[in-house]
Amino acid sequence: MGQIAGPEIERLVQLLARLPGLGPRSARRAALHLLKKREQLLGPLAEAMRVANERIVVCRTCGNVDTADPCTICRDPRRDPTILVVVEDVSDLWALERAGAAPGRFHVLEGVLSALDGVRPEHLNLDRLVARASEPGVAEVILALNATVDGQTTAHYVTELLAHLPVKVTKLAHGVPVGGELDFLDEGTLSAAIRQRTAF
Amino acid sequence: MGQIAGPEIERLVQLLARLPGLGPRSARRAALHLLKKREQLLGPLAEAMRVANERIVVCRTCGNVDTADPCTICRDPRRDPTILVVVEDVSDLWALERAGAAPGRFHVLEGVLSALDGVRPEHLNLDRLVARASEPGVAEVILALNATVDGQTTAHYVTELLAHLPVKVTKLAHGVPVGGELDFLDEGTLSAAIRQRTAF
Repeated sequence: MGQIAGPEIERLVQLLARLPGLGPRSARRAALHLLKKREQLLGPLAEAMRVANERIVVCRTCGNVDTADPCTICRDPRRDPTILVVVEDVSDLWALERAGAAPGRFHVLEGVLSALDGVRPEHLNLDRLVARASEPGVAEVILALNATVDGQTTAHYVTELLAHLPVKVTKLAHGVPVGGELDFLDEGTLSAAIRQRTAF
Repeated sequence: MGQIAGPEIERLVQLLARLPGLGPRSARRAALHLLKKREQLLGPLAEAMRVANERIVVCRTCGNVDTADPCTICRDPRRDPTILVVVEDVSDLWALERAGAAPGRFHVLEGVLSALDGVRPEHLNLDRLVARASEPGVAEVILALNATVDGQTTAHYVTELLAHLPVKVTKLAHGVPVGGELDFLDEGTLSAAIRQRTAF
């Protein structure tokens, strides 16, 4: 591209290509779109990124990203203070919030245990979790971890870690997704849905 | 999202969602990736966008986007000055340049005629094309337009427009894409490939 346009455009394309979901081709398309919509999009986006870069902090209580520490959720007095919801990643926290599904405050582990990727307990935000779960008034820790092998390994590890505390440790229900068709579901999900059936 | 994080993050997600190829979900994923990679990605990308926004100009000769006017291609003395390659959009110019396929300089129409979208000749960069094609020394105009109905309508219109000039008007060859399998090609392409067959 060096001969087509200045190095500024090439650099923009290269950086955009590092966003998840964009490859080299779609990064070029995105760059071109930005260059065509300078006033409506390129300028505002550049500014939004600058502001985010300047103000974003990681909440030292729960690990959420926000512009305040403690974050908006940790400061929210309407949250049930007796419940901690443990998630792998901030994206899971956002997903649960969008669903309005989490009753308490969060705790972001920043990953899950993985033998394959060499992620060990000391790499995760676990000390802080034990400290928070030990606080008086905390009654339940909900493990909202992915239903993957690594997610479930981590769930078992965390359960052991909290076993000596007077808190109830729970996990998400398995079952048929809302709107899902049985024909497309795997055997594990169907067995779990039958085993954990509820009264109609 | 208003309750999850500050308005700064929400604004970043909303702007990212307006990039082609990113929807609401992937925009959130991209925003989170940026927030996690602040030093390596968010900061540099914010800066690259600011610089691009400041320096980008549209070449008044050909319609390319660059940081100089005339653009790098129009100023390149190694380009064949007798040939003009007409494209619909800057993205097509980039595609031909990546292939190293264009022998001359470009002319970007900024669209194609379209009855459906209400694009009429006065909306396209046509006056400037006629002026450039009229310059002494220009011998050929290659219509590198998409093989769509609108692209071909535009190609016919441009051919009429240049008919009074002493320039040869040519168009891209139709045929089997390199690496393509006959079985997957439409009848139109196959007929064209047979009709325009070349000596082996």
